[in-house]
Amino acid sequence: MAASTASRLSPPRLHAAPNHPLRRSRFSPLRAAKLEAVLSIGTHVIPHPRKVETGGEDAFFVGGDGGGVFAIADGVSGWAEKNVNPALFSRELMANSSTFIKDEEVSQDPQILLMKAHAATSSIGSATVIVAMLEKTGTLKIASVGDCGLKVIRKGQVMFSTCPQEHYFDCPYQLSSEAIGQTSQDALVCTVNLMEGDMIVSGSDGFFDNIFDQEILAVINESPGTDEAAKALAELARKHSVDVTFDSPYSMEARSRGFDVPWWKKLLGAKLVGGKMDDITVIVAQVKTVVIPDDEGSGIELEKVGGEQLAAAGVASAEQSE
Amino acid sequence: MAASTASRLSPPRLHAAPNHPLRRSRFSPLRAAKLEAVLSIGTHVIPHPRKVETGGEDAFFVGGDGGGVFAIADGVSGWAEKNVNPALFSRELMANSSTFIKDEEVSQDPQILLMKAHAATSSIGSATVIVAMLEKTGTLKIASVGDCGLKVIRKGQVMFSTCPQEHYFDCPYQLSSEAIGQTSQDALVCTVNLMEGDMIVSGSDGFFDNIFDQEILAVINESPGTDEAAKALAELARKHSVDVTFDSPYSMEARSRGFDVPWWKKLLGAKLVGGKMDDITVIVAQVKTVVIPDDEGSGIELEKVGGEQLAAAGVASAEQSE
Repeated sequence: MAASTASRLSPPRLHAAPNHPLRRSRFSPLRAAKLEAVLSIGTHVIPHPRKVETGGEDAFFVGGDGGGVFAIADGVSGWAEKNVNPALFSRELMANSSTFIKDEEVSQDPQILLMKAHAATSSIGSATVIVAMLEKTGTLKIASVGDCGLKVIRKGQVMFSTCPQEHYFDCPYQLSSEAIGQTSQDALVCTVNLMEGDMIVSGSDGFFDNIFDQEILAVINESPGTDEAAKALAELARKHSVDVTFDSPYSMEARSRGFDVPWWKKLLGAKLVGGKMDDITVIVAQVKTVVIPDDEGSGIELEKVGGEQLAAAGVASAEQSE
Repeated sequence: MAASTASRLSPPRLHAAPNHPLRRSRFSPLRAAKLEAVLSIGTHVIPHPRKVETGGEDAFFVGGDGGGVFAIADGVSGWAEKNVNPALFSRELMANSSTFIKDEEVSQDPQILLMKAHAATSSIGSATVIVAMLEKTGTLKIASVGDCGLKVIRKGQVMFSTCPQEHYFDCPYQLSSEAIGQTSQDALVCTVNLMEGDMIVSGSDGFFDNIFDQEILAVINESPGTDEAAKALAELARKHSVDVTFDSPYSMEARSRGFDVPWWKKLLGAKLVGGKMDDITVIVAQVKTVVIPDDEGSGIELEKVGGEQLAAAGVASAEQSE
């Protein structure tokens, strides 16, 4: 085609109407002091096909503090070559996080939570990690070290996404038992203001390496709740991960970094494709609004929080949850 | 290839050392009360090839408030079909922004700045817009409506990126003179904690539609300063924009949305490629640290802010700057 010079469009009336309800659903303390944002959270973990018995090396925790909090840690598998179980560090990091989240100093700051949880580890190993905390005002605070990911979906499109941090291909930033690793000071720290109805999709790299954004959007659109969405997303990523013909985000990234099949296979039209077998952890959280009873106890719950209660706090890894 | 099951790696010692200096360069008021973050900003605008005489429809402003502030507005070109000059709205929006940034209420909140600047417009038209404000502590606050973009580059990789919002392909969210458009309440609002040395690359869609992240990283790496980087980035995007053989981010996105050449051309091996001719605005900002003299006036400036001073506040569009 000739270089395009498409004139961009003003939205037709058709598209304007659905946008308006959002304006009424912000969590503004000035406009509705008793409205609070909470997360309805669903989770699903599928271990690497060869690690089903041990439960894999991902771990996560979910808590009801503030408007809701969750975290994912992915134990770096390279430690197995040194006869270290890579799951120990990630599980301890999540167990520590679930303890320290009760601490007043860290309950509002995901980076301080990472610092304390990391400092309290005694296991040998390392892990990528992401922590997300929702304030009751609707602000989501995120700290991430490495290539766990988080996306926010609003009105059928990805409107926020974290970026992975890595030293080089397949060597992510990581919190470690060794001084050589990164610390919480190296984390990507950011916040995003959420609205009622926003969906958060977070996962380990084993999830995002095996699924495209358009697939995530389709599954979210079709799922009745966050539990079902997390399960469907994890299963779709697992299916892709063992499909040697699937041109996955991972294989596309590998090719863009210069990895490919040998030259003689290229001559035959072959290219590097395939999913990436890995532990897959998915957390899906929906932002809901609740009206907190005021001092006279006259508040009414505007919208019930669904079955996937955020109050179901706890630490889990595939070992426990599968 | 068979489905990969690559074992991820711990970083070798080689990669750990360069990481350490970052830990000492955070803007923590607890650790160095007199250290303040400021932006050294470079800008460059290249109008659409057929709009050189009128200067195009992008506008921007740069200011020295707080640790530094900048904004880009991209007038929606579809208004020309209604005999409205699409540049008027975007320029007025930026002029208003440069006025209201002095207002204490808005100087800390890019979303309130958008609200006030939008409310004060009298021109007919609409525009996509992004505003970024750096606090002296190093926190960058962003509000974006539509498909202007902003990326943060740290240690040679993109570690933060905004996502575009659109109604459908080539119809972005936009602030408008008409009630049908979006408002500041529809903005993506987020923050990211920056470190000394971080580079911010922001632009209109005419920039990001014509350049890949790897190209941005290469140019940033090679440029001696933010002025040179902004110019080189804009010129590379312009070159791609008029290249009918370049498989641009825009043409890749178009194909992923189902647009392509006619079937008979496909049979001949053709596909939809090409750059997108558009106004191109690029702002490059580097985070620097200055030591502010304390009460006794004993402070020393640790690092001089480069030639591209952030204090060079003003409003500009291609009409003025080209």
